[in-house]
Amino acid sequence: MTKFLETGQKSRSPAPVRNVRLVVEYDGTDYFGFQRIPGRKTIQGEIEWALTRITEEPVIIAGAGRTDAGVHALGQVVSFQSRGKIPIERIAIALNSVLPNDIVIRSAEEMPEEFHARFSAVERAYQYTILNRSEPAALIGRFSWHVPYELSLKTMRKAAKNLVGVHDYLSFSAADSGVRGHTREIKELSVRRSGEFVKIDIVANAFLRSMARIIVGTLVEVGQGRREAANVNYILEARDRRLAGRTAPAKGLVLMGVKY
Amino acid sequence: MTKFLETGQKSRSPAPVRNVRLVVEYDGTDYFGFQRIPGRKTIQGEIEWALTRITEEPVIIAGAGRTDAGVHALGQVVSFQSRGKIPIERIAIALNSVLPNDIVIRSAEEMPEEFHARFSAVERAYQYTILNRSEPAALIGRFSWHVPYELSLKTMRKAAKNLVGVHDYLSFSAADSGVRGHTREIKELSVRRSGEFVKIDIVANAFLRSMARIIVGTLVEVGQGRREAANVNYILEARDRRLAGRTAPAKGLVLMGVKY
Repeated sequence: MTKFLETGQKSRSPAPVRNVRLVVEYDGTDYFGFQRIPGRKTIQGEIEWALTRITEEPVIIAGAGRTDAGVHALGQVVSFQSRGKIPIERIAIALNSVLPNDIVIRSAEEMPEEFHARFSAVERAYQYTILNRSEPAALIGRFSWHVPYELSLKTMRKAAKNLVGVHDYLSFSAADSGVRGHTREIKELSVRRSGEFVKIDIVANAFLRSMARIIVGTLVEVGQGRREAANVNYILEARDRRLAGRTAPAKGLVLMGVKY
Repeated sequence: MTKFLETGQKSRSPAPVRNVRLVVEYDGTDYFGFQRIPGRKTIQGEIEWALTRITEEPVIIAGAGRTDAGVHALGQVVSFQSRGKIPIERIAIALNSVLPNDIVIRSAEEMPEEFHARFSAVERAYQYTILNRSEPAALIGRFSWHVPYELSLKTMRKAAKNLVGVHDYLSFSAADSGVRGHTREIKELSVRRSGEFVKIDIVANAFLRSMARIIVGTLVEVGQGRREAANVNYILEARDRRLAGRTAPAKGLVLMGVKY
């Protein structure tokens, strides 16, 4: 016992709690989505496990976007509180040395205690990539949706315009028991061609479950001429998921960044 | 026997020989390079096997660029002769249905009999991608080389300028018993920054073994300040592989296209 006291264990004051923000990149292909699910490989699970290893204490993180299985990120933001003593400028390097290669920490920053990656976020930006040519892709197949039909960007843009604004997006949402309201604000929804690709950028204050992918799936049906551009107004009003288009594949979607 | 004759087997005239050109995309990550090696997974081996399946005869292809193991292509060109009766406009679709997902045929075209993918080519264009930031890449790690040091593009461009022209590139070549001369013409060698990436484009009439990658490896050493830009002239004159820089990793290199 005396020996224990001599090592200073009893007199050590607890380290202060730090609130830390990480910017994270990941290839979601091999993951069961962002959110931790016991027994499954998830982004949250991997990052928490890595943090627990380097800080030597259990850590729980909050993420700005709870991306679905297979969705990627270039600018996901997570936050956590920790008493770990590792210097802030060493956290990214330490995490990258234990994380798998398909998850990379871009930066770590100490934040005021009121900062929360999810609740403080005011805007999320997603980008969807469609490979629009007859043959599939050999190189970027895991980051794009192959649509081999001709797409009219003009009518897609017309439909997109009708989706911008403050709306109840229940029709464009997968069932999610944890969510009460379905009103969100889409601030930007642009469709552009870039070589063989069609890029769709969606910026909103927040997203419902699978919302970005259902919007993309619906816009593609409009672009193929299978729906009228004006049809999206009817879908919005009906508040019925069955009226919107198919959910575009997860692999084409990337969480680009989050604003605070 | 009579039955055989009645089915017209004997009177069937042989189908004419067609000379066919394919444009091919591939992710070279899981391959042992372009050139067929018995018992190894190669691009040539996969395409020949697929062609043999759809034409029902043994087929040997020639490729414009014999890319190393791990090198990718967006515009590889191959040619072959075949008596197979499959319509030319069906060849790409038929091949893509039997090829693995990381090899895609972009187009198939019938060519005059003198056309040969390798010997008729007058120019090959390669692009090398460097991810130039401190953290590695989660998404495009398989298509880029991570260089976490600061690079001076100014000195890289100076060195690049000295490599352009008609030169004996023996110093920038891996040993290759099958090649006699080492004189080639580099027509373009440009270095540019694009966000977090540095892109190096190399256009030459033809390339020696690993030449593009040894040039990139040497330019990066120049960019880091570990070599003088003028040093490349000395390397060229010495005709000694040991004087040039390291061979840049295969995964950053893409064969972009071939001119005829």
